[in-house]
Amino acid sequence: MASKLVDLRSDTVTKPSEAMRAAMAAADVDDDVLGADPTAQRFEAEMASIMGKEAALFVPSGTMGNLISVLVHCDVRGSEAILGDNSHIHVYENGGISTIGGVHPRTVKNNPDGTMDIDKIVAAIRHPDLHYPTTRLICLENTHGNCGGKCLSVEYTYMVGEIKSHGLKLHIDGARIFNASVALGVPVDRLVKTADSVSVCLSKGLGASVGSVIDPPAEIVGSKAFIDKAKILRKTLGGGMRQVGVLCAAAHVAIRETVGKLADDHRKAKVLAEGLKKIEQLTVDSASVETNMVFFDTMDPRISPDKLCAVLEQHNVLAMPASSKSIRFVIHYQISDSDVQYALPCVEKAVEELLKGGTEFEHLTNGTTKNSYGH
Amino acid sequence: MASKLVDLRSDTVTKPSEAMRAAMAAADVDDDVLGADPTAQRFEAEMASIMGKEAALFVPSGTMGNLISVLVHCDVRGSEAILGDNSHIHVYENGGISTIGGVHPRTVKNNPDGTMDIDKIVAAIRHPDLHYPTTRLICLENTHGNCGGKCLSVEYTYMVGEIKSHGLKLHIDGARIFNASVALGVPVDRLVKTADSVSVCLSKGLGASVGSVIDPPAEIVGSKAFIDKAKILRKTLGGGMRQVGVLCAAAHVAIRETVGKLADDHRKAKVLAEGLKKIEQLTVDSASVETNMVFFDTMDPRISPDKLCAVLEQHNVLAMPASSKSIRFVIHYQISDSDVQYALPCVEKAVEELLKGGTEFEHLTNGTTKNSYGH
Amino acid sequence: MASKLVDLRSDTVTKPSEAMRAAMAAADVDDDVLGADPTAQRFEAEMASIMGKEAALFVPSGTMGNLISVLVHCDVRGSEAILGDNSHIHVYENGGISTIGGVHPRTVKNNPDGTMDIDKIVAAIRHPDLHYPTTRLICLENTHGNCGGKCLSVEYTYMVGEIKSHGLKLHIDGARIFNASVALGVPVDRLVKTADSVSVCLSKGLGASVGSVIDPPAEIVGSKAFIDKAKILRKTLGGGMRQVGVLCAAAHVAIRETVGKLADDHRKAKVLAEGLKKIEQLTVDSASVETNMVFFDTMDPRISPDKLCAVLEQHNVLAMPASSKSIRFVIHYQISDSDVQYALPCVEKAVEELLKGGTEFEHLTNGTTKNSYGH
Amino acid sequence: MASKLVDLRSDTVTKPSEAMRAAMAAADVDDDVLGADPTAQRFEAEMASIMGKEAALFVPSGTMGNLISVLVHCDVRGSEAILGDNSHIHVYENGGISTIGGVHPRTVKNNPDGTMDIDKIVAAIRHPDLHYPTTRLICLENTHGNCGGKCLSVEYTYMVGEIKSHGLKLHIDGARIFNASVALGVPVDRLVKTADSVSVCLSKGLGASVGSVIDPPAEIVGSKAFIDKAKILRKTLGGGMRQVGVLCAAAHVAIRETVGKLADDHRKAKVLAEGLKKIEQLTVDSASVETNMVFFDTMDPRISPDKLCAVLEQHNVLAMPASSKSIRFVIHYQISDSDVQYALPCVEKAVEELLKGGTEFEHLTNGTTKNSYGH
Repeated sequence: MASKLVDLRSDTVTKPSEAMRAAMAAADVDDDVLGADPTAQRFEAEMASIMGKEAALFVPSGTMGNLISVLVHCDVRGSEAILGDNSHIHVYENGGISTIGGVHPRTVKNNPDGTMDIDKIVAAIRHPDLHYPTTRLICLENTHGNCGGKCLSVEYTYMVGEIKSHGLKLHIDGARIFNASVALGVPVDRLVKTADSVSVCLSKGLGASVGSVIDPPAEIVGSKAFIDKAKILRKTLGGGMRQVGVLCAAAHVAIRETVGKLADDHRKAKVLAEGLKKIEQLTVDSASVETNMVFFDTMDPRISPDKLCAVLEQHNVLAMPASSKSIRFVIHYQISDSDVQYALPCVEKAVEELLKGGTEFEHLTNGTTKNSYGH
Repeated sequence: MASKLVDLRSDTVTKPSEAMRAAMAAADVDDDVLGADPTAQRFEAEMASIMGKEAALFVPSGTMGNLISVLVHCDVRGSEAILGDNSHIHVYENGGISTIGGVHPRTVKNNPDGTMDIDKIVAAIRHPDLHYPTTRLICLENTHGNCGGKCLSVEYTYMVGEIKSHGLKLHIDGARIFNASVALGVPVDRLVKTADSVSVCLSKGLGASVGSVIDPPAEIVGSKAFIDKAKILRKTLGGGMRQVGVLCAAAHVAIRETVGKLADDHRKAKVLAEGLKKIEQLTVDSASVETNMVFFDTMDPRISPDKLCAVLEQHNVLAMPASSKSIRFVIHYQISDSDVQYALPCVEKAVEELLKGGTEFEHLTNGTTKNSYGH
Repeated sequence: MASKLVDLRSDTVTKPSEAMRAAMAAADVDDDVLGADPTAQRFEAEMASIMGKEAALFVPSGTMGNLISVLVHCDVRGSEAILGDNSHIHVYENGGISTIGGVHPRTVKNNPDGTMDIDKIVAAIRHPDLHYPTTRLICLENTHGNCGGKCLSVEYTYMVGEIKSHGLKLHIDGARIFNASVALGVPVDRLVKTADSVSVCLSKGLGASVGSVIDPPAEIVGSKAFIDKAKILRKTLGGGMRQVGVLCAAAHVAIRETVGKLADDHRKAKVLAEGLKKIEQLTVDSASVETNMVFFDTMDPRISPDKLCAVLEQHNVLAMPASSKSIRFVIHYQISDSDVQYALPCVEKAVEELLKGGTEFEHLTNGTTKNSYGH
Repeated sequence: MASKLVDLRSDTVTKPSEAMRAAMAAADVDDDVLGADPTAQRFEAEMASIMGKEAALFVPSGTMGNLISVLVHCDVRGSEAILGDNSHIHVYENGGISTIGGVHPRTVKNNPDGTMDIDKIVAAIRHPDLHYPTTRLICLENTHGNCGGKCLSVEYTYMVGEIKSHGLKLHIDGARIFNASVALGVPVDRLVKTADSVSVCLSKGLGASVGSVIDPPAEIVGSKAFIDKAKILRKTLGGGMRQVGVLCAAAHVAIRETVGKLADDHRKAKVLAEGLKKIEQLTVDSASVETNMVFFDTMDPRISPDKLCAVLEQHNVLAMPASSKSIRFVIHYQISDSDVQYALPCVEKAVEELLKGGTEFEHLTNGTTKNSYGH
C-alpha cells in the first residue's frame, strides 16, 4: 500500500497550512460580540469590499450562512423560497429552512449547467391568493456543486436579478463563487451584483485553511440592514462568536494567497477528466469540467460508485459517490499534478480489479453506502 | 341575461339541500370534546367502517385534514414528506406543512395521470446521513385535482404501499376518493387499504351539503393511535369541536344519498367534454375525463382563460382558470343535464365574442387574474 | 336519580335553541371564500361595529381566534408576546403560539383580579439586544377565566394601552368580553378601544347557540390590515369557511337575544355563591363573583374537587375541578333559578356523603382526574 | 488614565493563553464529520468520562448546546419544557427554543439561590389533556448566573431527578458546572448524575481559552442515543465541524490547567465582595458569594448601574449592569489579586464622583443602557 494519500473527496478536507496556523496564533483579537475584534472587523470589511456589498458577517459554516440568509429574507411567517431542485440548500442542508425556519421551498428544475429556466422561475412565483404562501426569495448556487461545479454567468445572474421586480430578493449560495470568478474571468463582485446576500465558504477552493477548524466556515455579505438582522439570527442559532479574529486571520491568508491558485486547480481537473475519459468503462464529459470538479459515470453494476470508491481507498485514493451511478473527484490546492498522475492509474486498476474480482469486493460496501457529500 | 346560474367553478360551491338543513336542525347532539356527541360518534364510526380504518375524526376543512395528517406522521422535528409537485397539499395549502408544521417537502414530478413514478419516489427517500432530514411520509392524491380529476388505481396504491417498507407512512389526500371509487368501480376501502391515513372531503362530489357550513369539511381516518394524536393537533390548531353532530348529521345525508349520484356526474362531465371538443379554438382530451372534472386549453391569447371566464360570467356560467392556458369545469350534483346543455353554447358564444371583440373585454380581467382554485 | 341535569361545567355546554336552529336552516348563504356570503358579511360588519373596529372575521374557535391574532401581530420570526401566567392562551391552548407559531411567551404574574401589574409588564418588555427576542405583543384576558371571571376595567385597559408606545400591539382575549361589559356597565367598544385585536367567543355567555356546532366559535376584530392577514392564516390553519352564513345566522340570534340576559346570569352566580358560603367545609369569596363564574375551595382532602364532582354527577349536577383544591361553577342562559336552587342542596348532600363515606367513593375518581377546562 | 485594564464584565472576555495558542497550532487534526479527528475524539471521550456520561459533542457555543439539548429532548411537536423564570435559556437565548424549535416554555419562579421549589416544578407538569402541550423536560442551571453564581447542591439535583419519574428528562445548563463542583467540593459527575444531558462551556471559569475563538464554545454530554440525535441537529443549525481538533486542543489545555485555579477565583470574589461591602452606598451580601460572581445593588439613582459602569470604564475597570439596580463583577483566571486591589478604590472613587458630579456624567449613558449580559 502506498504511503501517499490523495484525497479527492471534497475541497473541504484540507488541513491548515503552516501560514494559517501561524496567523491564528498571532491574531490580534478582542471581543467580537462587543464589536471590538480588530482582525474580524478588518476581514469582514475586506470581504464586503471584495464582494461589492455594504457589510459582511463571519459564520461557523456555509450551512449556517445559507440558513441565516434564507431566514432573514423570509422573516415573515408564510414565506416561500424558490430553489433549484438539485441545489445544496434543498438537498444537503437537512431541510433546515423548513424544519428550523418554517420556510416553504418551491423547487424549479436545475438544468445540467446549474441554471433554472427563467420562465420556470417566473411561473413559480406566487401571485397573492388565499391558498398561497408568499414568494420572497430566489436562491442560486454558483458554482453549482451537484451540477458538476458549473458556473452561472454574469448575464444569467442579471436576468434572474430582473425577476426581483416581482418583489423578491436574491440569495446566492456562493460557496465556490471564487472558482466561478476565476473560471469565467469576471470579478466576483460582478457575479453577485444583483444578489441581496451571498454566502461564501472560506474553506473550499480558497485553500480550506479555515476548514481545518470549523467546516465550512463562511462569510455572508449583504446590505447593512441585512447583516444587522443576520447577527441576531446567528446569536439565536448559537453561532455567535467573540474573539473570532483567530479564525479570520487564517481566512485572510486563504483569500490573499489561494484565489490566485484556483486557475491551477481547474487546469488539473481538466487533466484528470481527460485521463478518466480514456478508461473505457467510465463516461466523463471533459468539456463540462469548468472548475475544480470532475463527475464521471459508471454504468456497469460491477463497478458501482460504492464499490469503486471502496477499492480506490485501498489504493489510497479517496473519493465519494455522487449518486448510484456517478462519482465525484474534487481538486483543491493540496492536490498536486503528481497526485493527479498517481490517481489516474489507480482508477484504471480499480476498474480492472472489480471487473475480474467477482464477489470478492462485496464486503467492501456492506452497510457503508454513502451517496451524499457536503458542499 | 339569463336568470339561471350554472356554477362550474368547483364541487365546493353548492348550497345545503333541504334534507341537509333538516338533518342539521334535528340532530341529536352533545359535547363532542367530552366524546359524548352521539351523532358525531355514529358518523365517525360509519366513516371509519366505510374506509376500512379503525377510527375517524371530523375536521373543519380538507386543508386541516391534510395538515393534521402530515403533522401527525411527521411529529418529530427534521421530517420530510414526499409529495407530488402538482399536488393540492404542495400547491394550494399555503405551504402550511412547512410554515406551520416545519415539515420539509420533497417533491416528485406528477405524471399527467396523477401518479408519481415508483422509482422516482424510491429515489427521493433519504438514507440516514448527517446532511439529510428523515423521510417519514409519502402523500398521494386520489382523484388528483390538478391532473384533471384522474384516478389512482388500486394496483398503483398497492405498489406505493410496498415502499412503506422503507419505514414510511402513506397519507392519501382523498378529497374526492369517492369519485375515484365510483369511476374505478372499486370499493373505497380497497383504494385506501395501504394508507395510514386518509382525508375525505364531505363537501365535494358528495353533494357539498356540509360545504354550505364550513368548507371543505373533512373526515380523516386512520388507526386509533393516529386519531388520538390527530385530536390533540385539531385542538391546537383551533379546529376542536363540541356538538359537531349538527354538521355530521348533514354529512351523513350526503354520504348516504349522493355517492350513488357520482356516476351521473361523471357521465355529464363526459358530455361536457365531448361538446367542448367541437369548439375549434379549444383543446380538450375527452378520453382523459375520468371523473367530474373537465380541463380544456385555449392557445389563442385573445381567448385567455381569464378573459373567457369573465365573458362566461356575463352569460351566467361560472368557471375558474386552472393555469394561464387552461380552464377547469367541475360537475357536481347540482348541475343538471340541461345546465350542461345551457353551458356549451355559452362557451361557444363567448369564444366568438372574444375573437371579434378586440379590446372591448380588456377591462373584464383588470386586476382579477385568479389562476388558483381550491380542492 | 333525578331526571333533571344541571350542567355547570362551562358556558360552552349549551345546546342550540330552537330559534338558532331555525336561523341556521333559513340562512341566506353563499361562498364566503369568494367574499359573497351575505349573512356572514352582515354579521361580521355588525360585530366590527359593536366592537368599534374596522373589520371582523369568523373563526371556528376561540383558540383559533387567539392563535391567529398572536401570529398576525408576531408575524416576524423572533417575536415575543407578554402574557399572564394564568391566562387561557398560556395555560389551555396547547402552547400553540410556540409549537405551531414559534412565538416565545414571556409571562407576567396574574393578580387575583386578572390584571398584571403595569410595572411588571413594562419590565418584561425587551430592549434591543443580541440576546433577546423582540417583544411585539401584550395579551390581556377579559373577563379572566382562571381568575374567577373577574373584569378588567376600562381604566386598566387604557393604562396597558399606553404601554403600546414601546412599539407593541395589544390583543384582548375577549372570550367573555360581553360579560365584562354588562358587569361593568360599560359599552364593549370602550373596553377594547386600546386593543389592536380582540377575539370574542360566540358560544359562551352569549347563549352558546353556535357552541352547538363548533366550539367555541369566535369572531376576531381589528383593523382592515389585521383582518386581511388573519384571513390568510385562517386558511393556512384549515379554518377557512365558505357558506359560513349558516353559523353566523345562529350567532346573530345569540348576540341579539342573549346579551341582555347576561346580567341575570351574574345575579344567579351571586345567589349560588351565597348559598355555597353557608356550607361549612367550603370556602367561597362571594364578593369576588363579578360575572358568571363561581370558584370555591375545599381544604378537606376527603372532599377533594375530583371526588366532589364525581358525587355531584350522581346527583345530576355537572361541574369541573379548577385545580387540586378548587371547583368552578359556571352559569349560562340555560341555568334557571330553580336549577340553582336544585344544585345547592346537592352540593351540601355530596359533601356530607363524602365526609362519612370513607373509601366508598374512591373508585369514582380512579384515573379520571381532570383538573383542566376549556374557555 | 491607567494603562492597566481590569475586565470584570464576564469570564468570557479572556484572551487565549500562549499554551492554548500553541496547542491550537500543533493539534493533530482530521475530518471530524467523518469521525476521524483524533484530538476531537480524545477530548470528547475525556469530557464524557469526566461528566460520567456515555458520549460528548463539541458545539460552537453554549447557546447552541442548550438549544440542541432542549430540541433533542423535545423532538416531538407539542412539547413543553419547564424552566426557571430567571434562567439563561429563558432570558438570554433569544427565545430560540420557541422561535427556532417550537418548544413551549413553562416557567417556574427561581428562588434567590437558583433553585425552583420542587412542588412548583411538580405542579407545572402537565397531565394528559386535549388542552395541554406535553411536558418533556426540566432544565436546571448550575451555577445559576442570574442568581449570583449560586450552586445547586447534589441533594437538590437528586430531588429534581426523582421528578423524572413523570416521564421527563433533565437537562442541566452547566455553563459553569466546574465552578459549582469546586465550590461544593463535589466531583462534577455527581452533580450531573441525574441529568440526561449537560452543556458545559469551555470558555468561562475554565480559563476562557477557547473563548478566544468562538464564544462560548461548549461540550454537551449525554447518552449515546442523545449525542447521535444532537449531531444531526448540530449539522442542521450550521454548527457542524470538521477538523475541530484545533479548538479541542485548546479546550483540553483549559480543562487540565485551570479547573484547579477556580478555587482561587472564588476566593478573590469573596475579597472583592468584602471590599465592596465597605462602600456605604452599595449593598452587597458577601455571604451569598459562592463562586466567581459578585452582585451588588445601588439604590441611589445618582449612582445607577449604567452611570457607575460608565465612570468605572474611565478608570479602566470594565463591568456590566445586571439590572436597573444591580451590577455584576465576574472573576476569571486573568484577574489577579492586584487587579482586585486596583478595582476596589476605583469603585469607591467612581461612587464619590457620581455623588458630587451632578449632571456631568449624564452623557456617559445616553443611549448606551445595556442591562443584559451573556453567560
